Amino acid sequence: MKILNSSLTCVKGVKAVGKHVGIKKERKDCCIIHLGKLASCAAVFTQNSVKAAPLLVDIENLKKSKGKAQALFVVSGVANACTGEKGFKDAKKMCEIISKELSIKKTHVFIGSTGVIGKFLPMGIIEKGVKGISDELSSSNESGLDATKAIMTTDTKMKTAAIDVDGVKFAGIAKGSGMIHPNMATMLCYIFTDGIIKAASLKKALKAAVNKSFNMISVDGCTSTNDTVAAFANGMSGKGLDNEKLQNALDFICFELCKKVVSDGEGATKIFEVHVKNAKNKALAREMVKAVISSNLVKTAVYGKDPNWGRIAQALGQSGTPFNFYKTDISLEDVKIVENGVGKNFDLKKVKSIMGRKEFRITIDLKQGKGKAVGWGCDLTEGYIKENAIYTT
Amino acid sequence: MKILNSSLTCVKGVKAVGKHVGIKKERKDCCIIHLGKLASCAAVFTQNSVKAAPLLVDIENLKKSKGKAQALFVVSGVANACTGEKGFKDAKKMCEIISKELSIKKTHVFIGSTGVIGKFLPMGIIEKGVKGISDELSSSNESGLDATKAIMTTDTKMKTAAIDVDGVKFAGIAKGSGMIHPNMATMLCYIFTDGIIKAASLKKALKAAVNKSFNMISVDGCTSTNDTVAAFANGMSGKGLDNEKLQNALDFICFELCKKVVSDGEGATKIFEVHVKNAKNKALAREMVKAVISSNLVKTAVYGKDPNWGRIAQALGQSGTPFNFYKTDISLEDVKIVENGVGKNFDLKKVKSIMGRKEFRITIDLKQGKGKAVGWGCDLTEGYIKENAIYTT
Repeated sequence: MKILNSSLTCVKGVKAVGKHVGIKKERKDCCIIHLGKLASCAAVFTQNSVKAAPLLVDIENLKKSKGKAQALFVVSGVANACTGEKGFKDAKKMCEIISKELSIKKTHVFIGSTGVIGKFLPMGIIEKGVKGISDELSSSNESGLDATKAIMTTDTKMKTAAIDVDGVKFAGIAKGSGMIHPNMATMLCYIFTDGIIKAASLKKALKAAVNKSFNMISVDGCTSTNDTVAAFANGMSGKGLDNEKLQNALDFICFELCKKVVSDGEGATKIFEVHVKNAKNKALAREMVKAVISSNLVKTAVYGKDPNWGRIAQALGQSGTPFNFYKTDISLEDVKIVENGVGKNFDLKKVKSIMGRKEFRITIDLKQGKGKAVGWGCDLTEGYIKENAIYTT
Repeated sequence: MKILNSSLTCVKGVKAVGKHVGIKKERKDCCIIHLGKLASCAAVFTQNSVKAAPLLVDIENLKKSKGKAQALFVVSGVANACTGEKGFKDAKKMCEIISKELSIKKTHVFIGSTGVIGKFLPMGIIEKGVKGISDELSSSNESGLDATKAIMTTDTKMKTAAIDVDGVKFAGIAKGSGMIHPNMATMLCYIFTDGIIKAASLKKALKAAVNKSFNMISVDGCTSTNDTVAAFANGMSGKGLDNEKLQNALDFICFELCKKVVSDGEGATKIFEVHVKNAKNKALAREMVKAVISSNLVKTAVYGKDPNWGRIAQALGQSGTPFNFYKTDISLEDVKIVENGVGKNFDLKKVKSIMGRKEFRITIDLKQGKGKAVGWGCDLTEGYIKENAIYTT
């Protein structure tokens, strides 16, 4: 596996464009990606029972097309969630517009949107904005970057990842910094590959990768209505990959992107990686990791570089999973601060310096069994409050 | 029912003292309350699986005494949670000390502690500090207030409530402003009455009251290791009450106190009351209320006076309860902002003024069935972050 410093257009056959059409005031708000040819497509969507209109349309289209897609069309600024029948029609209209522009089937257009909930998409502006878009599509590196920028909302950084596995390229883009909580995914993430991969294999590998990555991060405990992770394989490299290599490739892209999402959490200054090991089983280990990465009190302690491990104990206990705290060890990087449930004397200066890093690890050893899990959280700061007390209206 | 402006010593036979012994730097940290005679006692404890030592001792003592207690001894500054065998011994020692000082049985001393998790109680300081305490006990109004102050930690306000029901007095005190989340109770709450009430009736009524009140508030989504609500009935008024009057009295005291706790949530500037009505059933209504009052995004929107109802929709959907958002109405006080899942045009100035109040109501009508529930949350502000990024060390 070779890590590439390229945008998504490194994937053979993929062309992209990212532009401002007028949904947002100034920034790019429209991303169109042509997959080169009809591609295998697999996707996982939010578990929030209030699902945004584009997700409903995607689910329907993937069923009709039996896991195929030829283009991706994402708009940012308006989520098109909680928009009723009109929102659903608008989402279908998005497919129609791109279908005409690119001369492909409506059901082969995968769509997405992100932004404020409850507002309608300005369909006139969008339709006008993408007129003649096929001439603007390009396989330049810059076009890939433009397309990535066009899906951003409160993000401060672009999130991309790209690799080469035995001549097969994988590239992913993601956006998201608020309403980020483990239950499916994290706003929007799209992964492209030129490998020859069947939709069914792609789906299996994508689900497994998302479960380990996007489902194990939390910014604010809030599961969005629009969360989508989709993967597209156009086969244009002429090469296939065995299941293990495919899984490793998708894992890598998903880990990279989900860590970038959590690092760019609204107001976040750092991320912490939580390892739970020797739990009764994997499922319980996951629950405990999620409880710790989601705890407001742990997140504020991380912000304040405060090794107040009582908050970790509190979160573990709240997770509802059976364990014996008096058998539990907790470490910050290589410094053990709790042994068998009791606090140790530790070098406070050293621990504060660890907690001051951009990224550090908390390890929780339950000494119960062989289950383990990893997840990522970011700190909770005044920046989150400011951003969310004034967003909209 | 008559509301009284009195401290807990209005309850016949109850004497109290609140003083500084040296657990905290300067503020009162020791609360001792003598119940006058052997009283019926009922209590509910945190559902956090990591339970603090005093809770384990209380549970044991209540079993041994068959629901009786004669004195209450609470210390603040140190939670005595996650303190292992030594913490358990220290908690038992607290009972012993007061047992000697007041010449009552060890198992008749109900204890509590609140503060930093993971630290040991300074038992020498405590023992010395309460020497001769029986001479300091008093039924003056001020002593009751001192005792109330002595259980506070990050609280900025004292939380008390008192009523008279047909000559029977009820008085309650509570503390709590962080680690406050619906799953049992809210740090510490003690209720006293001079009614003749059997332990079993007291327990039944207390459980019902807590379920409606303390279990329906959230400051930060974090369930403490020390949560306790206990009620004591010494019978000294010579009067009994029927079940309905008893329930109403406990309900009133619990509602008053839990609202005071949430209003004094760390960094909070206001509280919001969430009503879910016409849900499929009561249990689902409760889940939805909890999802809304616990949402960081709703809490920050409330802080910013931002009627961003998409965040309410998001929280309802995340609750995992089955409902149709496109049948749902949402109102802020008397202003309907969502009808059948679609946003209405509303008077933004009016709505912002409602959201600027110290307390306002959000009503969510699901039009599914007859289930309903009410709960209370506070806003999430920079104050919470500041307080929790620097607490301890």
